[in-house]
Amino acid sequence: MMKTYNLAIIGAGPGGYVAAIRAAKEGLSVALVTGGDLGGTCLNRGCIPSKTMLKHAEVIEHIKDAKTYGITVNDFSFSIKDMVDRKHKVVNTLKNGIKSLMKQNKVDVYQGYGHIAEDKTVTIENGGSLDGLETIQADNVILANGSKPFVPELPGIEDVDYYTSDTIFNIDDVPEHLVIMGGGVIGLEIACIFNSLNTKVEIVEMADRILPGEDPDASDFLRRELGKKGIGIHTNAKITGIRKDDQQKAVEFEAGDGSKSMIETDSVLVAVGRTPNLTGIENLGVHFDGRFVKVDQRFETSIAGIYAVGDLIGGYQLAHAASDEGIRAVNHILGEANPQAESIIPRCVYTFPEIASVGITEVQAKEKGYNVKTKKVDIAANGKAIAAGETSGFMKLIADDKYGEVLGVVMVGSHVTEMISQATSYMHLEGTVDEIDSMVFPHPTVSESLGEAGSAWLEKGIHYS
Amino acid sequence: MMKTYNLAIIGAGPGGYVAAIRAAKEGLSVALVTGGDLGGTCLNRGCIPSKTMLKHAEVIEHIKDAKTYGITVNDFSFSIKDMVDRKHKVVNTLKNGIKSLMKQNKVDVYQGYGHIAEDKTVTIENGGSLDGLETIQADNVILANGSKPFVPELPGIEDVDYYTSDTIFNIDDVPEHLVIMGGGVIGLEIACIFNSLNTKVEIVEMADRILPGEDPDASDFLRRELGKKGIGIHTNAKITGIRKDDQQKAVEFEAGDGSKSMIETDSVLVAVGRTPNLTGIENLGVHFDGRFVKVDQRFETSIAGIYAVGDLIGGYQLAHAASDEGIRAVNHILGEANPQAESIIPRCVYTFPEIASVGITEVQAKEKGYNVKTKKVDIAANGKAIAAGETSGFMKLIADDKYGEVLGVVMVGSHVTEMISQATSYMHLEGTVDEIDSMVFPHPTVSESLGEAGSAWLEKGIHYS
Repeated sequence: MMKTYNLAIIGAGPGGYVAAIRAAKEGLSVALVTGGDLGGTCLNRGCIPSKTMLKHAEVIEHIKDAKTYGITVNDFSFSIKDMVDRKHKVVNTLKNGIKSLMKQNKVDVYQGYGHIAEDKTVTIENGGSLDGLETIQADNVILANGSKPFVPELPGIEDVDYYTSDTIFNIDDVPEHLVIMGGGVIGLEIACIFNSLNTKVEIVEMADRILPGEDPDASDFLRRELGKKGIGIHTNAKITGIRKDDQQKAVEFEAGDGSKSMIETDSVLVAVGRTPNLTGIENLGVHFDGRFVKVDQRFETSIAGIYAVGDLIGGYQLAHAASDEGIRAVNHILGEANPQAESIIPRCVYTFPEIASVGITEVQAKEKGYNVKTKKVDIAANGKAIAAGETSGFMKLIADDKYGEVLGVVMVGSHVTEMISQATSYMHLEGTVDEIDSMVFPHPTVSESLGEAGSAWLEKGIHYS
Repeated sequence: MMKTYNLAIIGAGPGGYVAAIRAAKEGLSVALVTGGDLGGTCLNRGCIPSKTMLKHAEVIEHIKDAKTYGITVNDFSFSIKDMVDRKHKVVNTLKNGIKSLMKQNKVDVYQGYGHIAEDKTVTIENGGSLDGLETIQADNVILANGSKPFVPELPGIEDVDYYTSDTIFNIDDVPEHLVIMGGGVIGLEIACIFNSLNTKVEIVEMADRILPGEDPDASDFLRRELGKKGIGIHTNAKITGIRKDDQQKAVEFEAGDGSKSMIETDSVLVAVGRTPNLTGIENLGVHFDGRFVKVDQRFETSIAGIYAVGDLIGGYQLAHAASDEGIRAVNHILGEANPQAESIIPRCVYTFPEIASVGITEVQAKEKGYNVKTKKVDIAANGKAIAAGETSGFMKLIADDKYGEVLGVVMVGSHVTEMISQATSYMHLEGTVDEIDSMVFPHPTVSESLGEAGSAWLEKGIHYS
C-alpha cells in the first residue's frame, strides 16, 4: 500500500519546514520531502552562515576600532578555520533543532528528490538510484523547492574556479583579492565579511547603483560607507568575460560608455541572483511566469491542490516571505474562505551599516498616485548612536500627506534589522504618523529616531525640523 | 520692565528642554531657567554617560570573548582616563546640540536657579549672589526640576567618601573593589561597567531581588547572568552602617534573619534611589504627594498655570517619561480640551544582557482582574542569537485570554532596548496577539522571538509550543 498524507511538502527550507509544522499543529498528516539538508539554503548556505561570519567580522571591527573607546589591542589574529568550524556548529545546532521539531510534530521526513505528478503522488529519488524508490500519495502538495545561485553564461566562466554563496562559507583560505560579481544583498554582505578579514574586495554591478531594488538614499549611503572601508565598487559595469591568466583570474567588464576594464584577482564570487530549483517538477505541467512557478493569491498553482511558495515563485526571495507564504498556503488547505490581505514583508541587509526597510519606496508610492511626503532623520545626532560611536545612518519615513498613512520606512545603521519591526507594526496595524508622534520611545535608543521622523514629518520635531 | 513670556520652564533636562522646543514650535515665547547644565541629569550624569561607559565595557567583553569567534587577542589594556575623556566629548557634543536647538527655536536660556512665586514670576539666582538678580514673568510655568541621588542617613556615612551616579562617571582610577548600595537600574548598569573593567563588584539590595519593580523572571535571569560574570549579589540585605577602616571602608548589613555581615572595600557607590530637587520651589505652596509634587492628569499642580513634570512628580523617573509629560503639559497650555490617554512608557535596563519592558507585569495584570495568559519564549533557540553568540534571554508576552489584548511584554537579551518599541507599537495601536501572529518579522533576527511568542501564545508556535 502506498503511504498517504493530507499534505506533502517538497523542500525543507523556511518555506517548507515551517508550513510542515503549522499544518501538523492543525492536525494534518504531513510528509516533508527533501533532496538536501533540513533548513534549506537559508540555514545551510544562506542567512545563517552569512550572519555567523558577519558576527566574526563585527568582532574584528570592534577590535580594530577599540582605540576609539579607550582600549589598546596590541595585536590580534584570526583563524578562518575556526570561523568556518564555528559556522558549522551554528548550522548543526539549528539543524538538529529542526530535526527535533519534525519528530515532535510527527512530520515524516523523506530524504531524496521528490518527483511530483499531477495526481499528487510523489516519487522519492535518492542519489539517482532506482533501488528502493518510494512513492507516496497526498491530498495536497506544497512545492517549496527553493532556488540556487544563478551562474550566467559568460565567455570563459567554465574554465575558471569561482565561488558562489553555496561554497564561500566553507572557504579554507582567506583570499587576498576577491572580485564580487553582483552588488545585491548577497554580494554586499560577503563583501563586508572579507573586507574585515583584510581581503581586497571589489564589486562589479551592472545597474547604476548597488542594491538597485532598495531606496536610492540607502544605496548611496551604503556605497559611501563601503568606500570608506576600502571596498571598490564599479557600477554600470557589464561583465563581458572571465579568463584564466597564469595563477590569476581576469574579470573583464564594460562601462556604460563602452570603455573596457579588467581586474586581475585570485578569486571570484558569482552573486548575480538566484534561479528556482526545478528538480522533480520538470514534467509536472504547472504554469510558469518567466523562470518562476505561477501562483494565485492563495499560492495555488495552475493545478488544483498543488501549491508553491518561496523562491520558486519569485517575489522577494526572502526566508520570512517563504515561511509566511507556506503558512498561508496551509491556511487555504485548511479551508480558509478568503485569501488574506497581502503580507507586509520587511527586507534586511546585514552590511556594515545595516539596511532594513518595509513597505514601498518613495518612487513606488508616487507611481501609485499617493501624495507622498517623506522625512529623513539622520542618526548622527542621536544620543545613543553618539554614545555607542555608531552614528552612520538615517531613518526615512514615507507617508501619504492626506491621512498620514505610513507607506514605507527605510532604516540605515547598526542593528536596524532588529528595529524594522516597529515600523512593520505600524503598517500591519495601520497606524498613522500622528500615532508615531504620540508614542513614547525609550531614551536613549537609536529606535527613537523613528519617533523623531514622525514628529518632524508633522513639523513638530524636537531634535529635527 | 520685567521680561514676560508665555511659558517659563524650570530645569533643562529631558522634561524641560523638550517641552521648551515643542512650545516654541507651537508659537509660545519660552524662557528656560536652569541652575545646571543643558540636558540635565540624563545627559550630564545619567543615561548618556552610563551608555557611553557601557559601550566601552561592551567592547572589552567582545575582546575577552573573541576566541569564541575564531579571533585571538594576545593582550590588551584600557585607559580609564581615555574612557572618561570620550564620555566628556560625547556629553559635550550633545550639549552643544541642545544649545543650538535653543537658539534655533528662540528659547531664552537663563543660567541660574529659578525661584518661583505663585504669581508666576521667576527670580533667577546665580551662585547665591544677589547682584544682578533678574526676575521674569510668565503666563504659565512648567517645573522640571528633576532629581538628585538620594543618600540615606546611615551611621557613619558622613565620615566616608562614597560615589554616587553624579561622580562615578568622572572617576580617575578604576577601583579594585566596588560595593554598590542598591540593586536597581542605576546600580546594576554601573555594576556591569566596572565588572568589565575587572573591578570586584558586590551589590547590596534591601529587597528580596534585584530590580524589584520589574518582572520576576527577568530579575532572576539577570541575577544568574551577573552571577556568572562574578558580580556578588546580596539581597534581603539592609545596610546598617558604613565606616572607615584603615585605608578601607566597611559596609555593614543585616540579613532577613537578623544575621549581620560586613564587606571591606576600597570604594562604595550609593545608588538607592533619587529624590526631587526642590531648590526654588520650597516656598511655592504647591501640594505634595509624599516627596513628590502632586499633579493632575494634565500635569497641573495645585496652583493653576503651574505644571510639573519628570522626576519631580515621581512615577517612572525616566527621561522619555519626562519628555512625554513635558509635551503633554504644553499641549494643555495650548488649549487642548481633554487630557490625553495615559501614555505607555517603556522601561530599559542596559545591563549585560539588557532588559526592556512595556505595559504591566503578570502580577499587576492579575490584580487588575484580567484573565491573564502568558507565553515565554527563550531566545537560546533563535537563529540570529545563535549565529551571534548572544543566546542569553527571553521574550515574554502577557495578554488577556479573552480578546488577546496585549497587556505587557518583557524582553531580556542583547540589544532588546532597541526592540521594545515593536511591543510598544502593539500596545499603543491596540494590536492583538492574533495580529502579532500574522505579522511577518524578518529572519534571521532576535526580534522575531516576539512573533514566536505570539504564535505560541495562540498554540500555533513554529519553533515553540
